[in-house]
Amino acid sequence: MRKRIRVVTPITTVGLVNAKGYQAIAGPDTEISVVQIDRGPASIESEFDKMLAIPDTVFKIMEAEREGMDAVVINAMGDPGLHPARQVVSIPVVGPAEATMHIASMLGHRFSVVTILGSVAPMLGGLAKTYGVFDKLASARWIGIPVLELETDPKRLVESLVQESITAIKEDGAHVIVLGCTGMFGLVEAVQSGLAQQGYGEIPVLDPIPVAIRMAEALVDLRLTHSKLAYPPPSDKRIVGFDVPARK
Amino acid sequence: MRKRIRVVTPITTVGLVNAKGYQAIAGPDTEISVVQIDRGPASIESEFDKMLAIPDTVFKIMEAEREGMDAVVINAMGDPGLHPARQVVSIPVVGPAEATMHIASMLGHRFSVVTILGSVAPMLGGLAKTYGVFDKLASARWIGIPVLELETDPKRLVESLVQESITAIKEDGAHVIVLGCTGMFGLVEAVQSGLAQQGYGEIPVLDPIPVAIRMAEALVDLRLTHSKLAYPPPSDKRIVGFDVPARK
Amino acid sequence: MRKRIRVVTPITTVGLVNAKGYQAIAGPDTEISVVQIDRGPASIESEFDKMLAIPDTVFKIMEAEREGMDAVVINAMGDPGLHPARQVVSIPVVGPAEATMHIASMLGHRFSVVTILGSVAPMLGGLAKTYGVFDKLASARWIGIPVLELETDPKRLVESLVQESITAIKEDGAHVIVLGCTGMFGLVEAVQSGLAQQGYGEIPVLDPIPVAIRMAEALVDLRLTHSKLAYPPPSDKRIVGFDVPARK
Amino acid sequence: MRKRIRVVTPITTVGLVNAKGYQAIAGPDTEISVVQIDRGPASIESEFDKMLAIPDTVFKIMEAEREGMDAVVINAMGDPGLHPARQVVSIPVVGPAEATMHIASMLGHRFSVVTILGSVAPMLGGLAKTYGVFDKLASARWIGIPVLELETDPKRLVESLVQESITAIKEDGAHVIVLGCTGMFGLVEAVQSGLAQQGYGEIPVLDPIPVAIRMAEALVDLRLTHSKLAYPPPSDKRIVGFDVPARK
Amino acid sequence: MRKRIRVVTPITTVGLVNAKGYQAIAGPDTEISVVQIDRGPASIESEFDKMLAIPDTVFKIMEAEREGMDAVVINAMGDPGLHPARQVVSIPVVGPAEATMHIASMLGHRFSVVTILGSVAPMLGGLAKTYGVFDKLASARWIGIPVLELETDPKRLVESLVQESITAIKEDGAHVIVLGCTGMFGLVEAVQSGLAQQGYGEIPVLDPIPVAIRMAEALVDLRLTHSKLAYPPPSDKRIVGFDVPARK
Amino acid sequence: MRKRIRVVTPITTVGLVNAKGYQAIAGPDTEISVVQIDRGPASIESEFDKMLAIPDTVFKIMEAEREGMDAVVINAMGDPGLHPARQVVSIPVVGPAEATMHIASMLGHRFSVVTILGSVAPMLGGLAKTYGVFDKLASARWIGIPVLELETDPKRLVESLVQESITAIKEDGAHVIVLGCTGMFGLVEAVQSGLAQQGYGEIPVLDPIPVAIRMAEALVDLRLTHSKLAYPPPSDKRIVGFDVPARK
Repeated sequence: MRKRIRVVTPITTVGLVNAKGYQAIAGPDTEISVVQIDRGPASIESEFDKMLAIPDTVFKIMEAEREGMDAVVINAMGDPGLHPARQVVSIPVVGPAEATMHIASMLGHRFSVVTILGSVAPMLGGLAKTYGVFDKLASARWIGIPVLELETDPKRLVESLVQESITAIKEDGAHVIVLGCTGMFGLVEAVQSGLAQQGYGEIPVLDPIPVAIRMAEALVDLRLTHSKLAYPPPSDKRIVGFDVPARK
Repeated sequence: MRKRIRVVTPITTVGLVNAKGYQAIAGPDTEISVVQIDRGPASIESEFDKMLAIPDTVFKIMEAEREGMDAVVINAMGDPGLHPARQVVSIPVVGPAEATMHIASMLGHRFSVVTILGSVAPMLGGLAKTYGVFDKLASARWIGIPVLELETDPKRLVESLVQESITAIKEDGAHVIVLGCTGMFGLVEAVQSGLAQQGYGEIPVLDPIPVAIRMAEALVDLRLTHSKLAYPPPSDKRIVGFDVPARK
Repeated sequence: MRKRIRVVTPITTVGLVNAKGYQAIAGPDTEISVVQIDRGPASIESEFDKMLAIPDTVFKIMEAEREGMDAVVINAMGDPGLHPARQVVSIPVVGPAEATMHIASMLGHRFSVVTILGSVAPMLGGLAKTYGVFDKLASARWIGIPVLELETDPKRLVESLVQESITAIKEDGAHVIVLGCTGMFGLVEAVQSGLAQQGYGEIPVLDPIPVAIRMAEALVDLRLTHSKLAYPPPSDKRIVGFDVPARK
Repeated sequence: MRKRIRVVTPITTVGLVNAKGYQAIAGPDTEISVVQIDRGPASIESEFDKMLAIPDTVFKIMEAEREGMDAVVINAMGDPGLHPARQVVSIPVVGPAEATMHIASMLGHRFSVVTILGSVAPMLGGLAKTYGVFDKLASARWIGIPVLELETDPKRLVESLVQESITAIKEDGAHVIVLGCTGMFGLVEAVQSGLAQQGYGEIPVLDPIPVAIRMAEALVDLRLTHSKLAYPPPSDKRIVGFDVPARK
Repeated sequence: MRKRIRVVTPITTVGLVNAKGYQAIAGPDTEISVVQIDRGPASIESEFDKMLAIPDTVFKIMEAEREGMDAVVINAMGDPGLHPARQVVSIPVVGPAEATMHIASMLGHRFSVVTILGSVAPMLGGLAKTYGVFDKLASARWIGIPVLELETDPKRLVESLVQESITAIKEDGAHVIVLGCTGMFGLVEAVQSGLAQQGYGEIPVLDPIPVAIRMAEALVDLRLTHSKLAYPPPSDKRIVGFDVPARK
Repeated sequence: MRKRIRVVTPITTVGLVNAKGYQAIAGPDTEISVVQIDRGPASIESEFDKMLAIPDTVFKIMEAEREGMDAVVINAMGDPGLHPARQVVSIPVVGPAEATMHIASMLGHRFSVVTILGSVAPMLGGLAKTYGVFDKLASARWIGIPVLELETDPKRLVESLVQESITAIKEDGAHVIVLGCTGMFGLVEAVQSGLAQQGYGEIPVLDPIPVAIRMAEALVDLRLTHSKLAYPPPSDKRIVGFDVPARK
C-alpha cells in the first residue's frame, strides 16, 4: 500500500534534516517528504524551547493532512505538539519518544534514554509518566553535547554515547538503550559496535526517527489512527496572533 | 510581608477577568495585578487551544518577574505554560490545577474535578498523571457549558455543578470537589449551599483561583520557589517569529 | 528489505489458519509462512490449555530460526511461549497481546479487550500486569463464544463484538478496542462499521494478527531484537520426554 | 481575615517550643498560641513514642476547637493524631509531614527528607505511602542526632544537614530538601547558605512548621476543611482510662 | 513444636472474647491465652477509637513477651498497635487485617472486605495502602451494624454479609471475601452457605482471627519474626502519664 | 486436623529431594509425600527450562488431588504450573515464590531474593509483578552457582549467600532476605549465623519450602482454597501429545 509520510522538523535551523537518509530507511512503498517550521527555536533543549516550537509544528501537521499525507512523524524527541495535533487531524501523528519508549518496553524490561543535555532529562521523565512507562525508565542520561554541536566531533559523540550506555546498563539496570535526540540519526550501528567491543553486544539500541517512521507506516497499513475519545476535537473560536490553517 | 502577585490570564477574550474579586480574596499584604495575553485563543477548551496560549503566557510571566512581582498565578485550569515558565523565571509560578489537586489530596482521599466540557477531561487526567495524583482522581466530570457561556445562565450553571458533584460523590467515590475551570470563580458558596440542601453539607469544594493565590502567597512568605534541578534554565538561542522578552 | 516471517499457530485444530489472509495484509517484501504445533490443545481458552501449547510452540520458533526466518509471530492472544522463546532464539518473537496492548496505548489513554470467554479474562489481566499496561486496561470483556465456534454464526459474532465494545466504551471508559482472539482475524471492518452505525465511528479497533505481523516487519527492518539481558539464554541440560530442537 | 491558630506540641519536654518564633513567621492577621501535651513521651523518635503522644494530642486539638481556634498545627514530623483528630473536630488540622510532602511535590519532581535518626526513616516512608507521594520520595536520610540534642551543637547540626542534603541530591536524585524534624525550626537559611557554598544554591529547603502554619492560614482563609467522607465522625461510646474532652 | 499464642483484645467491653473458640481452631500444639486491655474504648469503629486502644494494646503485647509467649495476635481488624509493638518486642505480632489481605491476595486477584460500618471503610483503605495491596482491594463494603450489636440478630447479620459479598463480587469484581471485623468470628460457614445458595459456591471467605492465629503459628514454627530494620527499637526516654512495662 | 500434603518436584534429576527433611519441618498432623515429574528438565534455571517442567507438574498435581491429598506444594522457586494447576484442581496449590514474597512483605517493608544464577533474576522480577509485590522487591541477586552444583561446596555456598545478603541489605535497602532456590533447603540457620557474625543478626531469612509447607497446612486447616473466579476451570477439549489425567 503506497503511503506518503511527512516528517515535520520542529526547529528553524536549516541543514540538520536528512531527507535522503529518512527515505533510505523507509519501506519501498513509502514516500517521505520533509518540512521545517518557520517560527520557533533554533533547537529544542528545554520545555521553553519546546513551547515555541509547538504551534507551527501543529500547523505544519494540519497542512500535511490537507496535502494528502497519510501520516506524520514529529522530528524531535520531546514529541512537541503530539497531543494538540491529534485533536485537529485524523491521520496518525507519531512522536519518536512515545514510539521508542513503547518499542523499548517490548524488547526488555527496563530501558534508558541517553540524550544531549541534562536540561532535557526532566522532560523525558515527564513524557514517560504521560505515556505510562515511567516504571520501565531505568534512567535518563546525557552526554553534555548540545544539538547544534552534535556534528562537530562524530568520534567523541559516539564514544560518549557508548560510555553513558554502559553506565546505564551497569549502574541503572537498563536492558535497552534509546538514543535521546533525533539529531543522533544514523549512529545506531556505531554505538552498537562500540558496545560490542566492550562486551555488550546483545543490547538493542533504538534510533528514534527510524522507529517512528516504521510505526507510522504500520499504522497506515493497519488503517489505524488515534481515538477521538482520547483526543477530542476543539470547537472553533477566535485566535489572535496565529495564522491557524483551516482544518481538513 | 508585602507581596505583589500577578494573575496572568491566558486567553484573549476581554471582560472575564475579575481583578477586584481576586484582590478581595487575597491577603491584606498582597497586591494583585492582572494581565491578559495579547496573542492566543478566545478560551481554552482543548490541548489545541492551550498550545496557542502558552508562549505569550510565559512571556507575560517573564515580564512579571522583570516588573518586580513576587509570584505569578496562571488563570486557567490547564496550567498552560507552567513548566516552561519555571525554567525562565526564579519567582514561584502557580498553576491552579496543580495547587488544587494537591490541596484536595490533603482534604480527602479521593477528589473529582467538575469542568466545563468533555473535551477538557482527558487533559485533566493527563495533568493528574504529570503531578502524580492520578490515583486520587475519582473522576473528571463536565457540565456541557463552554467557557464563554458560563455567565449566561448562573442558576443553571450552579445546578449543573451541584448535580455533577453529587454524581461524583455517589458513583465515583469522591470526597472532595474541585471546580474545573477558573471561570467558575466565586461559585463555591452557591455550590456548597446546593450540596448541603441535598444532604452533602460536609464536602469541601475548591475554587481554583483563590486556592492558587493563597498558595502563591504562602510560597512568597516562605521564601520558597521551584527547584532548578527540576526546571533547568534553557541556554540562549536564536528564536524566529516570537518576540521573546529578556530574562531578568 | 526482503523478510521471511513465520506465523506459529499454537493449537492442533486444522483449518483455522488463514495463510492467504496473513500474506494479504503483510508488506510487499514479506513472505509469510505458517506452521501449527503437532502436540498441544485443540484451542486455547485457559492457562491450562496454554501450558500444553507452549513447549511445541517454542520448538517451532527454534526451527523457524534455523530455517532462516527473520521473525516469528505467535498466533494466539495469550502469547504462549513468548518469554521462553526469546531466551533460545535471536530473531524477534512477537506476541499479539503484547503488541496490541502497546499500540493501543499509543492510540488512546485506555483500551478494552473483547475476547471469547470469561475464562480468558484473568489471563489477559495477568498479561497486562506483566507488560506494565494494567493501568490502561479499561476492562477485559467477552462474548461467550468458544474459539471453535467463532465461524459458526458470523453475524452473531460481529453483533456480540459490537455490543461488548460499546459497553466497554460507555461503562468502562475505553478509548480503543482490541479484538481479544486471533481467531477474530478479518473482522475489524465489520466491527468498526457496526460501531459507526451506533455513533461510535472514531474508535480504533485492533486486529491482533495484522498488528503483530506489522510489528514483526518493523523490528526486522529496524534490525532490532530482544535484549539478552531481559531474556538470558539457558544453559544446556538433560531434558526427558521432549524432543528439543538444536539451537541455531 | 483574623485567625487564631493553635500549635499543639506532642511531647512533654518543656523548653523546646518557640512560640515567639512561630508568631514571627505567621501572617499579620494570625494569632498563634501554643500548648503541649500533659501525657506522653519526652520526644518522638519511633512509632512507639508516637502512639504515646497521640491521645493527648488529639484531646488538645479538641480543646483548641472548643476554645474557638480556627485551625491546628501538629508540631511533630510524624503527624501524630492527624487522622483521628480530623474525625472529631471540624476545623482544619495540619500535619507538617503531609503539608511539606505536598508542597515539595510542587517545587520539584523528587524530594528527600533529612531527619534526626534512622529509627524515624521507616515511619516517614510509611507516611509517604499513606499520603500517596511515595514515588516522589527520593530518600529519607538522617544525621544521627536525637531530638533532645538538636540544640547542643548548632554548627555540627547544620553541617550534618548540609552534608546529607548534598548526598540526597547527588546520589538519590532529590530536587528538593525537607527538614525532617520540627525541632530543626529556623535552620533553613543556614542550610541553604551551606548548600550554596557547595554549589547547590537553587535547591528549595522546607522548614516543616512554617510550611504547616502557612497551610493552616490558607485553609482558614479559603474556608476549607477536611471532608467528613474521608474522616467520618465516630459514634459515642464508653472509654476507660482516658479523660476524653467533650466534642464541640 | 509447642507454642503459646496470646490473643490481645483491644477493647474494654467484656464478654465478646471467645477463648474456647480460638483454642478450638488452633493447632494441636498451640496454647491460646487471651487478655483484654484495661484502658481504651468499648469498641473500635473509627481512627479515634483505635488511637485510644493502641497504648494498652502494645503494653499487653510487651507483657505477653515477658510472660514467655511465642507470638501475639491482635484481636481487631484495624491492627491497632501493630507497628509500635513490633518495635518493642521480638516475638511475631500478627494483625488480622495484614494477614488476611495477604492471604486473600494469594487466593484471587482482587478481594473485598465486608465490614460493620461506613466509618471503618477509609481506615481499611488506608491499611491496604500501608500494606501495599491497595490495587487488589476491589472494595470496602459495610453492613451498617455496630460491633456491639453484632450478636443481636445473627440471622440478619449473616444475610447482610451474604448480600454485600454478592454485590462485591458482581459490581466490584471481587474474587475473594474478607470478613471485616474480628467480631464476626465463626460466621464463615454460614456466609459460604448463603453464597452457595445464590450460586457463588466457590468463593473463599476469610475469617480474620483464624487466619491470624494460623499465621502466628506458622511464623513460630518457621522461627521467623519481624525485621528490626523495618521496625527499629526506640531509645529509652521519660514518659509521662503511661505506666510503660519494662521491655524484655 | 490430619492432612496430607504432596510436594511435587518439577525436575527430573533424582537425589535432590529431601523427603525426610520436609517431613521434619512439617506439623505433627501432616503427612508429607513427594513425587517428581517424569518428563521435563534436569533443573530449572530459565523460563525455557520452566516451560518444559510445567505440563507434567500440573499432571502430578491433578493426580495428587485424585489420590486424596489435601494440598500441594510446588518444589521450585519459579512456581511452575501454579496458575494452570489452580484451574484444574480444587485443593490449595502453593508456590514457594508467591508464599515467601507475601510472608516477606509482612516481616519488613522491602525484601531481596538471593538466587542461583543471573538467568533466573528476570523471572523472579516477573513473578513479583504478577503477584503485585514488585514495589517491595529491593533486588534479585545471585551467587553464580547452578542448581546441580549447590551441594558441591557447602561452605562456599553459605558464604556466597551471606555476602549477597549483606549487599542486598546495605546497597539495596532490603529488610528481609528470601533464599531464591528451593535447593537451598536447610541453609537458613547457617546463613543467619553468618549474617549475625557480621552484625546483621536481626534480619529474617526465609527458606522457601518450609514457608510453602506451612502455608499449605494453614490453608487446609482454614478450609480455604483458590477462588474459581480468578482461576476458572477450562472446558474439556482434544489434546494431542500429552496424556492428560482425568480431573477429579
